[in-house]
Amino acid sequence: MAAATLAQAQGLPSWNDGAAKQAILRFVADVTTPGSAGFVPPGERIAVFDNDGTLWLEQPIYVQFAFALDRVKALAPKHPEWKTTPPFDAILRGDMKAFAASGEKGLMQVLAATHAGMTTEEFSREVADWLAKARHPRFKQPYEALVYQPMLELLAYLRENGFKTFIVSGGGVEFMRVFAEKVYGIPPEQVVGSTGQLAFKTGADGKPVLLKLAKIDLVDDHAGKPVGIQRFIGRRPIFAFGNSDGDQQMLEWTAAGAGPRFMGLVHHTDAEREYAYDRTSSVGRLDKALDEAGTRGWTVVDMKRDWNKVFASDK
Amino acid sequence: MAAATLAQAQGLPSWNDGAAKQAILRFVADVTTPGSAGFVPPGERIAVFDNDGTLWLEQPIYVQFAFALDRVKALAPKHPEWKTTPPFDAILRGDMKAFAASGEKGLMQVLAATHAGMTTEEFSREVADWLAKARHPRFKQPYEALVYQPMLELLAYLRENGFKTFIVSGGGVEFMRVFAEKVYGIPPEQVVGSTGQLAFKTGADGKPVLLKLAKIDLVDDHAGKPVGIQRFIGRRPIFAFGNSDGDQQMLEWTAAGAGPRFMGLVHHTDAEREYAYDRTSSVGRLDKALDEAGTRGWTVVDMKRDWNKVFASDK
Repeated sequence: MAAATLAQAQGLPSWNDGAAKQAILRFVADVTTPGSAGFVPPGERIAVFDNDGTLWLEQPIYVQFAFALDRVKALAPKHPEWKTTPPFDAILRGDMKAFAASGEKGLMQVLAATHAGMTTEEFSREVADWLAKARHPRFKQPYEALVYQPMLELLAYLRENGFKTFIVSGGGVEFMRVFAEKVYGIPPEQVVGSTGQLAFKTGADGKPVLLKLAKIDLVDDHAGKPVGIQRFIGRRPIFAFGNSDGDQQMLEWTAAGAGPRFMGLVHHTDAEREYAYDRTSSVGRLDKALDEAGTRGWTVVDMKRDWNKVFASDK
Repeated sequence: MAAATLAQAQGLPSWNDGAAKQAILRFVADVTTPGSAGFVPPGERIAVFDNDGTLWLEQPIYVQFAFALDRVKALAPKHPEWKTTPPFDAILRGDMKAFAASGEKGLMQVLAATHAGMTTEEFSREVADWLAKARHPRFKQPYEALVYQPMLELLAYLRENGFKTFIVSGGGVEFMRVFAEKVYGIPPEQVVGSTGQLAFKTGADGKPVLLKLAKIDLVDDHAGKPVGIQRFIGRRPIFAFGNSDGDQQMLEWTAAGAGPRFMGLVHHTDAEREYAYDRTSSVGRLDKALDEAGTRGWTVVDMKRDWNKVFASDK
């Protein structure tokens, strides 16, 4: 219990002392104490985290979607036909209602135009350049500053206790890998996300490249999350954190294993410091998973009550 | 250089002192010596290994194929129709020539019958049970004893020097993960291989399961290897070892990065202790990649000359 006691004092300073923090400390103490009934060997201490709304903010629109919209605007001079071609015309006019009406088909067209047709290395550079310049519309800060300080502390605390931390997100894996190591300390090989198909080709200089194709391989969301976990990690997590209905099956899959399990949800309850949304939000809806958390005793973090600091950049 | 000198004396005892061993030691010394021009930070020391023919034997047939054939025989009593249904009738008669004539279609039917229609956990148990009982037809030993001792030493030596070791194989990921950690010290999340589709379902006891479907997702061989590396690892390796033309693109992808690179091939030249085969073998053909190794100065391990011990089980 020594490690847990120390962490209680030092490791999670942005967490107020309440049920959520206590549940985390109790779980970690249980699985890391040699001889305890719940002891789990370090190699099996797999912890998975959703990204959007769990590790960083997702309002008013997903960050990767903000990137895609900005890319459409940046690429528009090369595509004069977009001025009169849906759904690009709507984006260029800033008419998000018309864009939303283009539905899944419109979204796929935007993803194809902004996330395919370049090499993996070119795409990574575009994302890095964008992250360096882009600012959140409300907080006026780089997105990488709008990661949740309590979750950074939790990631570090778990790693100090022999956990291997993974992202398991509906976001694109090539997008997240650009910042995950720098911001979260999670290396590329521990980022699981939605994937598109790649083609191995010979580049102009005779060197091989991997070309991003406009064809989706895995949508790592909802039932796709346990599939992504099995495909990429190959072990069932003992610790899982999400914030929306897209994380429900990941939490169910985690919960169904033997031995001690931790399932957590971030509930966005703080309109003042961040946003307040749940059952009716079009971004990050938390409805069925919130009901299941209540029924099954999963840990629900009330952002307003449980966190004394929200963003890493907060004073 | 202290670590490399030590390893020269202690770390690779089954490697004879020759060009291959020297190339390995020189490379590791170069990338791990702080201040050297070739220094690579530990997190970027990614080493990838093919499995069949590189870490364990692949003759006279791939081990996973031996598993599939044995499964057909074990399942035959439940499928009386197989006695008169190609390609199963050929397998049950032991007529491998007739089975080979059924081609890709026949192979897919066998994979569907033996690798799909069960949960991931049921499949893992079947593989583990089979590995415990099966014996190699020539060496009369469990397959897990027929891993190459020099490669086990190389894996351990790289890990001691801050490398993260991965399998990148055409074999099925769910098959390899059953033994990779125990035999190679490579955990499930560092095994990249061919993948089939999975479905998240509710099992008979109300708990979620992942069902293996008879649909292939990624064939992690030839050009599929760099794709698998990017999808699962997300970093370019600096060290790659294979043994066949199926590894050629993985070695090209590794070679095309900046800074020091190590590309190695195991050349099976020892008919007495193992097998001798290369340009005309139907299993593990080494032809184009051998030519490219010559042209580009990749390291070719001559099994007969470079290894003083072959299998981990050799005295």
